[in-house]
Amino acid sequence: MTAAGDRVAEVVAELVRDVPDFPEPGVVFKDIAPLLADGVAFADVVTALARHGRGVGGRPTVDKVVGIEARGFILAAAVALKLGVGFVPVRKQGKLPGPTERESYALEYATAVVEMQSDALKPGDRVLLVDDVLATGGTIAATAALIGRCGGSVESVAVLIELTFLGGRARIGDLVLHSLVAVT
Amino acid sequence: MTAAGDRVAEVVAELVRDVPDFPEPGVVFKDIAPLLADGVAFADVVTALARHGRGVGGRPTVDKVVGIEARGFILAAAVALKLGVGFVPVRKQGKLPGPTERESYALEYATAVVEMQSDALKPGDRVLLVDDVLATGGTIAATAALIGRCGGSVESVAVLIELTFLGGRARIGDLVLHSLVAVT
Repeated sequence: MTAAGDRVAEVVAELVRDVPDFPEPGVVFKDIAPLLADGVAFADVVTALARHGRGVGGRPTVDKVVGIEARGFILAAAVALKLGVGFVPVRKQGKLPGPTERESYALEYATAVVEMQSDALKPGDRVLLVDDVLATGGTIAATAALIGRCGGSVESVAVLIELTFLGGRARIGDLVLHSLVAVT
Repeated sequence: MTAAGDRVAEVVAELVRDVPDFPEPGVVFKDIAPLLADGVAFADVVTALARHGRGVGGRPTVDKVVGIEARGFILAAAVALKLGVGFVPVRKQGKLPGPTERESYALEYATAVVEMQSDALKPGDRVLLVDDVLATGGTIAATAALIGRCGGSVESVAVLIELTFLGGRARIGDLVLHSLVAVT
């Protein structure tokens, strides 16, 4: 692990709170609010995530950063700014105006739908998909499908925390995944 | 108006779409997605908003940037990164874990509730409140009340677009408001 990677691991250990039984019994919620509220830690994490959208010489290798409503907007928008590229939101059903693409995915006892505006990407746009936590991978897999339907390609997926015991990496198939911190 | 302000006005004129009858009949929705998707325009707007959190010599005059779920997270998180300060989310009811402060406000035919974690701010924290659109001002007034109850003070409110015909400026009382573009 690099020095920068060590630093992010320390920041996550220190500033991400485990909240038992939230939002429902049996789930341990990863609360990243203390990390976001610390300007230095926030900037360190954004820098580390943005590295996965850069190539040799530090130039961006992507045209857009995509973020997922709602919490996912926070890190993804900051990463887009850091890279100097545009930001595209993926939202829950009914929130985006105009023609949209939709994708549904299975939750434990229900189905959820995410949407992206049909004209959100230019043909061939390379996308860095950023999220805070990779859990079961359902939302990320659905978002990757939307990106493809809108004419883009997912260069890679960068997440702050990967909950490896939930098997999300398997569910997102062939996507290249970079997680800054893995929780086993 | 400054040169930078002119540029933001141009960017808004060119890249913000009016969507009639969204999300309901009679409402004209300001769709900022094309602006966010343009890396240069997005960075210009973030720079202009962040200026309202800087003092003489460019140093930040605020300790935190507060953003409001969901669309408000996008510009606010990027402004926090630009200023090098922490980001604090205000969310809809039931989304934030742990002890929270709550504030309700009136919608046209209903009441909405916003929440902030009780420990989100340090005593005396100075806050820049950032949002994309100032409409009736209800959410921003409620958020300012939350900031006060959590021990902070609102240094100013910075929004991309002010819909002056909705009278939001009056509803937010004594708060200092900076709008980059006013729509009359």
